[in-house]
Amino acid sequence: MSKPNKDAVIALDVGPPAKLTPALQAYFDKCQEKLGFVPNVLRAYGFDTVKLQAFIDMVDDLMLADSGLSKLEREMIAVAVSAVNHCHYCLAAHGAAVRQRARDPIMGELIAQNWRAAHLPARQQAMLAFAEKLTETPAKIEEADRAALRAAGFSDRDIWDIAATAAFYNMSNRLAAATDMKPNLAYHDMARTKA
Amino acid sequence: MSKPNKDAVIALDVGPPAKLTPALQAYFDKCQEKLGFVPNVLRAYGFDTVKLQAFIDMVDDLMLADSGLSKLEREMIAVAVSAVNHCHYCLAAHGAAVRQRARDPIMGELIAQNWRAAHLPARQQAMLAFAEKLTETPAKIEEADRAALRAAGFSDRDIWDIAATAAFYNMSNRLAAATDMKPNLAYHDMARTKA
Amino acid sequence: MSKPNKDAVIALDVGPPAKLTPALQAYFDKCQEKLGFVPNVLRAYGFDTVKLQAFIDMVDDLMLADSGLSKLEREMIAVAVSAVNHCHYCLAAHGAAVRQRARDPIMGELIAQNWRAAHLPARQQAMLAFAEKLTETPAKIEEADRAALRAAGFSDRDIWDIAATAAFYNMSNRLAAATDMKPNLAYHDMARTKA
Amino acid sequence: MSKPNKDAVIALDVGPPAKLTPALQAYFDKCQEKLGFVPNVLRAYGFDTVKLQAFIDMVDDLMLADSGLSKLEREMIAVAVSAVNHCHYCLAAHGAAVRQRARDPIMGELIAQNWRAAHLPARQQAMLAFAEKLTETPAKIEEADRAALRAAGFSDRDIWDIAATAAFYNMSNRLAAATDMKPNLAYHDMARTKA
Amino acid sequence: MSKPNKDAVIALDVGPPAKLTPALQAYFDKCQEKLGFVPNVLRAYGFDTVKLQAFIDMVDDLMLADSGLSKLEREMIAVAVSAVNHCHYCLAAHGAAVRQRARDPIMGELIAQNWRAAHLPARQQAMLAFAEKLTETPAKIEEADRAALRAAGFSDRDIWDIAATAAFYNMSNRLAAATDMKPNLAYHDMARTKA
Amino acid sequence: MSKPNKDAVIALDVGPPAKLTPALQAYFDKCQEKLGFVPNVLRAYGFDTVKLQAFIDMVDDLMLADSGLSKLEREMIAVAVSAVNHCHYCLAAHGAAVRQRARDPIMGELIAQNWRAAHLPARQQAMLAFAEKLTETPAKIEEADRAALRAAGFSDRDIWDIAATAAFYNMSNRLAAATDMKPNLAYHDMARTKA
Repeated sequence: MSKPNKDAVIALDVGPPAKLTPALQAYFDKCQEKLGFVPNVLRAYGFDTVKLQAFIDMVDDLMLADSGLSKLEREMIAVAVSAVNHCHYCLAAHGAAVRQRARDPIMGELIAQNWRAAHLPARQQAMLAFAEKLTETPAKIEEADRAALRAAGFSDRDIWDIAATAAFYNMSNRLAAATDMKPNLAYHDMARTKA
Repeated sequence: MSKPNKDAVIALDVGPPAKLTPALQAYFDKCQEKLGFVPNVLRAYGFDTVKLQAFIDMVDDLMLADSGLSKLEREMIAVAVSAVNHCHYCLAAHGAAVRQRARDPIMGELIAQNWRAAHLPARQQAMLAFAEKLTETPAKIEEADRAALRAAGFSDRDIWDIAATAAFYNMSNRLAAATDMKPNLAYHDMARTKA
Repeated sequence: MSKPNKDAVIALDVGPPAKLTPALQAYFDKCQEKLGFVPNVLRAYGFDTVKLQAFIDMVDDLMLADSGLSKLEREMIAVAVSAVNHCHYCLAAHGAAVRQRARDPIMGELIAQNWRAAHLPARQQAMLAFAEKLTETPAKIEEADRAALRAAGFSDRDIWDIAATAAFYNMSNRLAAATDMKPNLAYHDMARTKA
Repeated sequence: MSKPNKDAVIALDVGPPAKLTPALQAYFDKCQEKLGFVPNVLRAYGFDTVKLQAFIDMVDDLMLADSGLSKLEREMIAVAVSAVNHCHYCLAAHGAAVRQRARDPIMGELIAQNWRAAHLPARQQAMLAFAEKLTETPAKIEEADRAALRAAGFSDRDIWDIAATAAFYNMSNRLAAATDMKPNLAYHDMARTKA
Repeated sequence: MSKPNKDAVIALDVGPPAKLTPALQAYFDKCQEKLGFVPNVLRAYGFDTVKLQAFIDMVDDLMLADSGLSKLEREMIAVAVSAVNHCHYCLAAHGAAVRQRARDPIMGELIAQNWRAAHLPARQQAMLAFAEKLTETPAKIEEADRAALRAAGFSDRDIWDIAATAAFYNMSNRLAAATDMKPNLAYHDMARTKA
Repeated sequence: MSKPNKDAVIALDVGPPAKLTPALQAYFDKCQEKLGFVPNVLRAYGFDTVKLQAFIDMVDDLMLADSGLSKLEREMIAVAVSAVNHCHYCLAAHGAAVRQRARDPIMGELIAQNWRAAHLPARQQAMLAFAEKLTETPAKIEEADRAALRAAGFSDRDIWDIAATAAFYNMSNRLAAATDMKPNLAYHDMARTKA
C-alpha cells in the first residue's frame, strides 16, 4: 500500500484521466479561459466521463439556472453548509465565489466563518438557518421550517432550490472529505479586494 | 399561505409537471413496466426536466454502473446512510431494494435498523463504518479511514464508489427531508418474502 | 475467550435457562399459544427467574394496563424511542406490534423510520416529541415540555405513562444493544398486510 | 392548568397514594426504620401499587442480588450514568449510596463529577467506560466493547449485570427528568464523613 | 516516560515552583489564613509567576469586583458551566463556593447536578440558560439570546459579566481537564451544613 | 430596548471607554504603530482597565512568552479551536496571524478551514488533535491523550502550553460569540500574499 501522493488532486489512485468527450473538452477549455484553470473537482471526476458529465449537469443547473435565489444566495448556501462540515475544498472554491459574487471580500469570509456574525437581511438569515438545520439534523425538519421560509418571502419553488442546493453541498462536502480533495491554489487569491 | 396537500408527493407546490423529453418519457415508461410505478422522487423532480435528467444520470451511474461494489453493497450504503439520517423516503425505497437484491428480506430490514446488528462480513462492516463516519462527521475523515478500507480489500477505485454513494444519499436524504417527500406505497410490500 | 455463538439469543454466555416457576411456565405457554413463539427477550432473561419476572411485571403493566394512552400509542412510543437509539431488537418486535395495533402496516413502518413523516394527529406528535426529547436530552426537560403535553390534551396521569414508557424503552434498547439481542425471525412477517 | 406544587415529590398530579399491600407497607416500614425515610421515588410510584412493586422488584434485584459486581460497583454505575444524564434525583440518592458503600465520601463525589478523574482500578474504568458508551451511543456498542470487559476480567454474566444496571438508570434518570422528581433532603447529609 | 505521580496537583511534571513575588507570597498567605490552604489551581500555576499573576488578576476581577451580578450568581455560573463540562476540579472548588455563598448546601449541590431542577427565580434561570448555550454551542448565540437576558432584567453591562464568567470557566475547566488537576480535599467538607 | 448599533465593536452597550492607565496607553500606542490599529478586542474591554490589563497579561504571556511551542504553533492552536467554535472574531484576527507567522497565506487558510486537510507534520497533528478534543469533549481527556503528545515529542511543560492556549481560545471564542464582537476590517487583507 503506497502512501498517497500529496500533490495529487485526491488521496485515491483512481486511474488515469479518461478521454474527454467533445462537450466535456469544450467545457474544460471554457473553464481554462474564464477561470485560468480547470477546477480540481472536475479533474478528480475526470477518470470517468459519465460521472463527470452528471456532476457538471447537476451543479451547473443548481448554481446557474434561473431561480428565485440569486447566484450569490446560492453561493452563500454552499459556503454556509461547507462551514458546518468544515470542508476545505468547498470553503476554498465557494469562498472565492461568494467573495466574487458579493463584490465584498469581507462579507465572503464572514459567511465561511459564521453566517450569524454577518448581520444579513432577514430573508438570507432564514435561508441559511434552514440550510444549517438541514445539514445538521435533517430528520428534524418539519412543516414549521418550511413555513418560516415562506414567512421570509420565499416561494415554494424557491424552497426547493434552497433545499436542493444545501443538499448538494452535503454531498460534495462529503466526497471531498472522503477523498481528501485539494482545491486549486488559485482560489486563494481570487476576489480578495473589493470590486 | 395554504396548507400543503397531504396527498401530494412533496409538501411544496412547485408547479405542474413539465412536458417530458422523449428520453425521459421512455424512462418513465420503463419504470412503470418494470416496477409497476414511477418512483415518487422522479415525479417530485418532474417540474423541471433538466434537474430530473441530471438526477437520473447521477443516481443510475452510481447504483447501476460497473463497480467493484456489488449492486447490493451500494444499496446497503444507501440504507445505512438513510438510517443515520432517519430518511423515510429512502428507507422505504432503498429498504425495498436491499431486501430485493439480498434476496433476504430480514437482512434488508436489519440494515435499516442497525447495520452493526447484521453480523456482516468484515468487508461490508468496514464499508458501512466508513459510510457512517462520512455521514456523521465528514470533517474527521483522515488517511487512517481510507487505509482501513484498503485493509478490508477495497481498491482506491472502490473507495471512490463507497464515498460517492454515501455522499449521494446524504444529498437525497436531505432533499427528501426538506420537501417531506413521500415514497410510493408499493415499496412497502416489495420483496417481503424470501426469494 | 470463545467467539459468541451467532445463533444464540444474545452474544453473552450467561449460563443455562433456569427452571421456570409455574407462573412463568404458564406465561411462556401463553406466548407460544398466542404468538407462536416465546419472545427472545424473555429467553434472554431466562437464566434468572427473578429478573425475568420483574421484567415481565414491568413491561406488561406499562404496555397493557389501563391508561389514558391507547395500546397503539404506547407501541408508538416504544418504536419512536427505539428509532432514536437504532435498536434492532425493539424495532423488530415493537415495529410488528405497532403495525398490528394500527391495523396499518405502512404507518407502522413510518414510525420506525421517522415519526415526523407520519403526519400524525397533533396529540400524538406532542407525545412523540416529548418521548424523543426525553430520549436525547433528558437533562433539558422542563416545565414547558410538560405544559406542551397538557396543551395537547394529556392529563398529568397520562404524562406519567408517556414518561414511563419512553424511559422503559431507553432501558430495554440499551440492554438489547449491550447484549446484541436477536429478535425472533417471526416478527419480520407479522402484520405486513393491512388488516 | 394549575402550576405544579413545588413541594410535591413530582411535578405531576397523578392522584392520591394507593393503599399499600401488606408487602409494600412492610417494605416502606423497613425503609423508614433503616434510612429514616421512604425514598421519594417510591412515594412517586405510590399512586399505583402494581407499578411500585414492579419497580422495587427490579431495582432490588439489580442492586442487591448476588452478582460478580460488588454493591459499590453497581452504585458506581448508577452514579456514572446519572452524571451523563445530569439526573438530580439519582445523583442525590445514589451519590449518597456510593459515598456510603465506598466508605469514602470524596471518592463518591468524584464519580458524580467525572469518573475519569477518580483514578479507579482498570477493572472499574472498563466497567464505567462501557456504561458511559451504552448511555451515550447505544447503537454503536459492538463485540469489541464486550471483549474489552472480558479483557478487564469480567465474565459474560458480569457483563449482563453491568449492562442491566446501566440500562436501568437510563430508565430511571429519564422518569425522574420527565416528572421533575425531587430527592429526599436527607440524602444530602448522608455519608459525608469518612466512615 | 514515567507514570505521573498520582499525589501531584496535576498529571504533568512542569518543574519546581517558582520563587513567589512578594505580592504573590502575600496572596498565598492570605489564602492560607482565610481558607486554611492554597487552592491547588494556584499551586499548579506556581511554576511561572507571570502566568500565576495573570490568572489571579483575571479570576479575582471576575468573581469579586463590583458587578450587577451577586457573587453567588457568579459562582452559580461557574458551577453550571463546570457541570456541562463535567470538570472535577471546578465542581469541587466552586461547588463549595456556591454552597457557602448560598448559605444553602442543598441548593449548591443542585446547581452542580442540574440547575433546571433548582427552581431558581426567572432571572437566574435566564442567566444559566445563556451560560449553558454559550458553553455548548457558542456559534449559535444570536441577538435573541441577549434580548432574553435583557427581558430578564439584566443590563448590557451585566450581560458582559455573565458572558465573561461563563467564558472563563470554559477555559479553566479545560485547563483542569487537560492537566488532570486535583482539587484540595478540604473543599469536600466546606459548607456542607446550613449556615 | 434599542437595537444594538451595528457599527459598534460589540452588540452590548457597556458604557464609555475608561481612561487608560499610562501603561495601557503605551500598549495601545504600540499596537497602533505596529499593526496600524488597536485590536477591537482591546477596545471591547476598554470600559474597564482592570479587565483589560488582565486580558492583555494573559494573552501576551500565552502567545509571546518563551515556550517549547513556536509562536506559529500557538496561533495554529488559536485558529483550530476557533474553527471548531466557528468564532468570526478569532478566525479573522488569528487567521491573519497564522498566515503571517507561517509566511504562507494558503496554509493559514487551511487551518481555519480544516486542519486535517493541511497535511501537517505528525507533531502538529498531535497538537491540534489534542486541542480539538479538549475543545469538543473536555470531560473525556485522559492519560492516553497526554501520552500521545509525549510520544509526538512534547515535554510536559509543552503540554501545559498546548492546554493553556487551547483553553484560552475556548474562553475568548465564547466572549466574542456572546457579545457579537467584530474584528477590525484590516485583518482581512493582512498577509494575503506569500512573504
